[in-house]
Amino acid sequence: MPGGDNMKRKIILAVADGIGDRPCEELNGMTPLEFAHTPNMDRYAKDGATGLVDILSPGVPVGTDLGHMILFGFQPDDYPGRGPIEAAGAGIWLMAGDVALRCNFATVDEDLNVVDRRAGRIRKDTSQLAEAINGQEIEGVQILFKEATEHRCVLVLRGHGLSSNISDSDPKIIDGITPSLLSEAMDESDAAVKTARVLNKFILQAHNILKDHPINKKRIAEGLLPANFLLLRGAGQMPELTPISEKYGFKGACVAAEGTVLGVARIAGYDTYTHENLTGNLDTDIEMKARLIKEALKYNEFVAVNVKAPDLMGHDNKPKEKAKAIEMFDHLFDYFLPEDMENTILAVLGDHSTPCERGEHSGDPVPLLLYGSGIRKDRSNRYGELECSHGGNGRIKGTELIQTLFDYMEKTKKQGN
Amino acid sequence: MPGGDNMKRKIILAVADGIGDRPCEELNGMTPLEFAHTPNMDRYAKDGATGLVDILSPGVPVGTDLGHMILFGFQPDDYPGRGPIEAAGAGIWLMAGDVALRCNFATVDEDLNVVDRRAGRIRKDTSQLAEAINGQEIEGVQILFKEATEHRCVLVLRGHGLSSNISDSDPKIIDGITPSLLSEAMDESDAAVKTARVLNKFILQAHNILKDHPINKKRIAEGLLPANFLLLRGAGQMPELTPISEKYGFKGACVAAEGTVLGVARIAGYDTYTHENLTGNLDTDIEMKARLIKEALKYNEFVAVNVKAPDLMGHDNKPKEKAKAIEMFDHLFDYFLPEDMENTILAVLGDHSTPCERGEHSGDPVPLLLYGSGIRKDRSNRYGELECSHGGNGRIKGTELIQTLFDYMEKTKKQGN
Repeated sequence: MPGGDNMKRKIILAVADGIGDRPCEELNGMTPLEFAHTPNMDRYAKDGATGLVDILSPGVPVGTDLGHMILFGFQPDDYPGRGPIEAAGAGIWLMAGDVALRCNFATVDEDLNVVDRRAGRIRKDTSQLAEAINGQEIEGVQILFKEATEHRCVLVLRGHGLSSNISDSDPKIIDGITPSLLSEAMDESDAAVKTARVLNKFILQAHNILKDHPINKKRIAEGLLPANFLLLRGAGQMPELTPISEKYGFKGACVAAEGTVLGVARIAGYDTYTHENLTGNLDTDIEMKARLIKEALKYNEFVAVNVKAPDLMGHDNKPKEKAKAIEMFDHLFDYFLPEDMENTILAVLGDHSTPCERGEHSGDPVPLLLYGSGIRKDRSNRYGELECSHGGNGRIKGTELIQTLFDYMEKTKKQGN
Repeated sequence: MPGGDNMKRKIILAVADGIGDRPCEELNGMTPLEFAHTPNMDRYAKDGATGLVDILSPGVPVGTDLGHMILFGFQPDDYPGRGPIEAAGAGIWLMAGDVALRCNFATVDEDLNVVDRRAGRIRKDTSQLAEAINGQEIEGVQILFKEATEHRCVLVLRGHGLSSNISDSDPKIIDGITPSLLSEAMDESDAAVKTARVLNKFILQAHNILKDHPINKKRIAEGLLPANFLLLRGAGQMPELTPISEKYGFKGACVAAEGTVLGVARIAGYDTYTHENLTGNLDTDIEMKARLIKEALKYNEFVAVNVKAPDLMGHDNKPKEKAKAIEMFDHLFDYFLPEDMENTILAVLGDHSTPCERGEHSGDPVPLLLYGSGIRKDRSNRYGELECSHGGNGRIKGTELIQTLFDYMEKTKKQGN
């Protein structure tokens, strides 16, 4: 019988962060992906098909957050700003209307001069500091506060009549008190004025609590910088967003180390799988990632995995190390057997290109690999930028690729009749 | 160090006007570009990559003006109409709200019958005639008037409450006075009615001044047709347009012969390089063009050049001459050495296709060639329609190509974070 549930494919979306690159002199004009030894992906390319994906549009660089929004099934306009994504990544469940910001624990002296933007890169005991300032209510606005990795933390304002059109309070300079230690309304609306006012009251209250906190007293005694001030940036207001899992009606999961990616996954309604051994760098436990994917595939129809290391090496302009990171990414597939892949489609691509020569994201399209039963083959023989530029999927946009994958999951709606 | 200014590429955008074509019987089924001997561009294609560009959208023919608007970085909706572009090309600096028109000097008899739409293709002394009627003010509207090439001239109305929704006053027929010797409002708005009325007053005043002008008396004495009337067409109102150079923050330049192209360049905020030896035809001084490009590259990050001849040969249905015009275009690159191209990307394409068989612009995509450091190679071996249709850049839109070039210049903004 045609159709039926056994033809509904499961999807593994494997995101090699920042994988796309340009010819590198150091690699004899090859890209890191072309230079890397990637026997698994090359075999998949031979038995599958390749192409190019413009995550947003040709020549338009995207951040990891927007890139993953699109790869996880959202439309570009759904982007809520960085604050809400980081807050979700730190584990705060967001509601429509919430205004969320990224924060740093910082160090100020008695005159409120910033001594260190990262409080000596504090790593320990931030959860106790966060606990001490979490849960306040100012002018009827509830304030949720949570630690994230190292000196980072997130803050959510919940209440009526808030706006994200407020300035960062993070001066991003080491010394000198500046007026920007507080936030300002960026328009004259009641909502913006109120939000900035509430935020500033909170910043000062938090300072009063933090400066005398036992953890900070202990840090000072140990010769460490106290985490006695908050610097805030990236305000974004959570829109009414239907989680992707709900909108299309499937169960999704995400295996990742990075808070940003996990945050997008949570907003998409996907279960998250993470572990302290997943580091987001070259020392990540790739076998554990593979195991978590296989575990997640038991309960989910769409399983995304992010491997961050290629992007980091691109930012550091290290073509050979980027090639190594890509080889590590390829090892992910050492742990998959043909029977694991039954009725499953593997899509491999980047969330953006991070050319080593630029050390930043670029608008170059990312190479795409599709493999699995039901995928039309093309003439590709390996996975690399050159091969993909002649691949059978042509050059498509990020939202078009995801729609294609959802269609293999049979989660799309026929248009017309 | 990654990134940094040394990775910001400069761009040479070389536009072979109307280069795209269809198979020509006369060329054994080849296109003029495929038939032409173009060793420089073929070498660039081998070391670079090709593709196809739909300047606006597949199957939609565009004019030289809109085509260059898009290639110089504007969005299709920015198009202000032909009048403003020609006025800018003639050297009038436009302000938002200005209504501009293209004009011909024409010859009418005593009964205001049009004797010749081009005043005997007058070439000499038009600047004195223009001077005589320039600078009038009617109903508070300032009227700027300037000669252009041969019998052509431009007119700008500057003042409050103007509209471009008025009819042409150019009947485009040789004999017989028609009501359309004057302009009519095309809607009942005060602005359109006022604009047509001011324009018509000007047309009649100009006629009174021109008919007795010494230059025309001299022309009549020499048996030449007097330039004693103005025919107007292509009214357009200048919108609020941020120059591209300002919007993206770079210095641009344009090397061209044609007023239309120079006009678009000026609206884009680019410096213009032109010379009487640049003719827009087969007899143009291509070495001078190359020299001007190299000169412009010293001071600018984006340098566009237009070579008009391929388009003219397409309009004249002369496939072999079009191939010759393309070979001349290829000679442009004889004057470039590898060191000229360091850290520079060359983009070659047309502003539209002008298939010889049609003798008019068509909606066929134009062949694209990208060459330079940082360009991902593909398997292209030469520059031609067939090869480009398999090129690694796939098939993209004009705005997408330009965004890609701006991204190589590092003038794009990352979306998301």
